[in-house]
Amino acid sequence: MNDAGILFVLSAPSGTGKTTIVKKVMDGMINLSFSISHTTRSPRAGEQNGVDYHFVSVSEFMEMRRKNLFLEWAEVHGNFYGTSRPAILSRLECGKDIILDIDVQGAALIAADDSVPSVSVFLAPPSLSELERRLCQRATDSNEIIELRLKNAVKEMAAMEHYEYLVVNDEIEDAVTTLQAVIIAERSRGHRLSSGEPVKLRVEK
Amino acid sequence: MNDAGILFVLSAPSGTGKTTIVKKVMDGMINLSFSISHTTRSPRAGEQNGVDYHFVSVSEFMEMRRKNLFLEWAEVHGNFYGTSRPAILSRLECGKDIILDIDVQGAALIAADDSVPSVSVFLAPPSLSELERRLCQRATDSNEIIELRLKNAVKEMAAMEHYEYLVVNDEIEDAVTTLQAVIIAERSRGHRLSSGEPVKLRVEK
Repeated sequence: MNDAGILFVLSAPSGTGKTTIVKKVMDGMINLSFSISHTTRSPRAGEQNGVDYHFVSVSEFMEMRRKNLFLEWAEVHGNFYGTSRPAILSRLECGKDIILDIDVQGAALIAADDSVPSVSVFLAPPSLSELERRLCQRATDSNEIIELRLKNAVKEMAAMEHYEYLVVNDEIEDAVTTLQAVIIAERSRGHRLSSGEPVKLRVEK
Repeated sequence: MNDAGILFVLSAPSGTGKTTIVKKVMDGMINLSFSISHTTRSPRAGEQNGVDYHFVSVSEFMEMRRKNLFLEWAEVHGNFYGTSRPAILSRLECGKDIILDIDVQGAALIAADDSVPSVSVFLAPPSLSELERRLCQRATDSNEIIELRLKNAVKEMAAMEHYEYLVVNDEIEDAVTTLQAVIIAERSRGHRLSSGEPVKLRVEK
């Protein structure tokens, strides 16, 4: 309806079901895409540059950092990951809405960054005991890793009150509907539509 | 998810399709009801007290006005109509969401009333020429009435920038989906959920 896209910043503790939910949300909506991070790690088999990640060298990454081109960045296991401000802005300017999947620290940085208006959404498990049950059920992680993920979840959930929306993944289909509703509703926010051409309303008389 | 209901204040120029859209929105949602006005006019055939209106005498109405019990009131063709603050508040306290269909002046009064937090939605026709076409097509009104309705629509649409959400009724099903999305999204707003019990999240560990 309006020209500029919206940046949806989504955080969720590990095991909340974020990947499944985001995939279903994207399948059901047009004009919505996923943010592609820059990383210095090597592509894994099947990963495509510009699709899964923007793969860059350490020196390229450092040059972008030096130029303050990252909305946020982090070092994980010796590799750098970052969200490019110009990449996000150019897609928003084309009217594309973007979902950016990011941890609570990154989300706080973006929320404080006035250069990119954003909408924050926290996706939460119904309870920590349910989260533990889901993490155990996946059976992909050791007990130590599960404990670590739960500790992180407690820390991350302490930040959820700072988010504009809180979506609880009790039933996946409900969470998908709610997240889609947030996106549709935000597209209809008056303050987005009141600047420039007011929707398609023209006073012809 | 939380305890208190939400008051959705909806305004739309005559002929926008509000009645149809609100009916479809209500049919598809639970825990949502329509605000029932107080009026001094006589019940018409089939109208039920407490369902269509709260029918009261002029002296009862004036007593309510004197006690400042109306969120807003108006006189139309010699009859009084008003929205009872205690009636709205008691339903909100029971966790019921309410749609209140009201003109732009009434909506401005309610938006300024801190005793009842509300969410404002303007439902707009795609254009004034389309509104004129729809009003003519209904063929229930004289040309003078249609002209009057269009003039009122121009006045009301000048106020739409003050609303939190703007839903354009281009296609009815899209407008229904968008209005439902606004209701679902507002139910997930962090500030509603951060007071009191944080959703169903309990830190059990």
